[in-house]
Amino acid sequence: MSRWEPNARGRLERAALDLYGERGFEQTTVSEIAARAGLTERTFFRHFADKREVLFSGAGALQDLLVDAVASAPDSAAPIDVVAAALETAGTLFQERREYSLRRQGVIAANPELQERELIKLASLASALADSLHRRGDKDPAATLAAEAGIAVFRVAFQHWIEEANSRDFPQLIRESLYELKAVTAGR
Amino acid sequence: MSRWEPNARGRLERAALDLYGERGFEQTTVSEIAARAGLTERTFFRHFADKREVLFSGAGALQDLLVDAVASAPDSAAPIDVVAAALETAGTLFQERREYSLRRQGVIAANPELQERELIKLASLASALADSLHRRGDKDPAATLAAEAGIAVFRVAFQHWIEEANSRDFPQLIRESLYELKAVTAGR
Repeated sequence: MSRWEPNARGRLERAALDLYGERGFEQTTVSEIAARAGLTERTFFRHFADKREVLFSGAGALQDLLVDAVASAPDSAAPIDVVAAALETAGTLFQERREYSLRRQGVIAANPELQERELIKLASLASALADSLHRRGDKDPAATLAAEAGIAVFRVAFQHWIEEANSRDFPQLIRESLYELKAVTAGR
Repeated sequence: MSRWEPNARGRLERAALDLYGERGFEQTTVSEIAARAGLTERTFFRHFADKREVLFSGAGALQDLLVDAVASAPDSAAPIDVVAAALETAGTLFQERREYSLRRQGVIAANPELQERELIKLASLASALADSLHRRGDKDPAATLAAEAGIAVFRVAFQHWIEEANSRDFPQLIRESLYELKAVTAGR
């Protein structure tokens, strides 16, 4: 029945990213991804619902990480600082997988449908952050605004991080982007 | 050939909103909308590409209004204040059509696919605002952050405006929401 394949998931992810980069997301089939990974289609579908899911399966773990970071922040911390600290924690993980992030972003930038999916993922992350702030007692509109502003800061820092050839530290870029937002909202 | 129908577009919009409210967006057909409006399907398709478009056809006009408002702001104004003034101008128009906004929002809140479409619309508005700030000489990341923060402020104010039974003034709610964002990003 189900044969154990060492790191099947990682192999499928790598094969998918390779193929999406080589011939485009639209033009790649699940059967080709499985073949490139040296696995069966059946194994693919044990790990991913479809070929789009390969690019978005990390969203749940990212959300859990952000929600946990918010939950474990000191009670006295202001919402925006709680959100910023959570995003910096996530940023550290992104930094460790920069090559993956660059390639994934290249695939998404080339496909409007994937861009829409990415937007929806980021909006879900903002909602999850706001909910997590509510649970620690932060009220609206402060909680929602801190979460939404935090995701805006993250997006701007991410774009910067992806575009820069010299690969600056992502958590540092998040701090700088937050600093910029503070200057912007102060009307400077 | 094409018979002139007085205010066909407005009649189709009203019929569509009535039916979406009564039986749900999914369950309503273009043929039913046309019949309710006393018009033909052919007339419907002269005005709207599909039944979803009835809810989103105003997005282009809203974007033009925001972009024009940004373009005509004083050179010396800070980006966040330029964006806030543009959103308040839009808010005034929303205020004049509060009943429509309430009903449209009810339809969208009941359908995840429409919620996604609405998110994408708001993200497009943020991009258009950022582009308009770039054209008046505002640099990134300030321009993008001001635009994204502005849309977050707008969303929070809109939610407030929709939920309140006593119908407070929308432009005033936008000003309050911006004030809250300033407090939040200052870490208070």
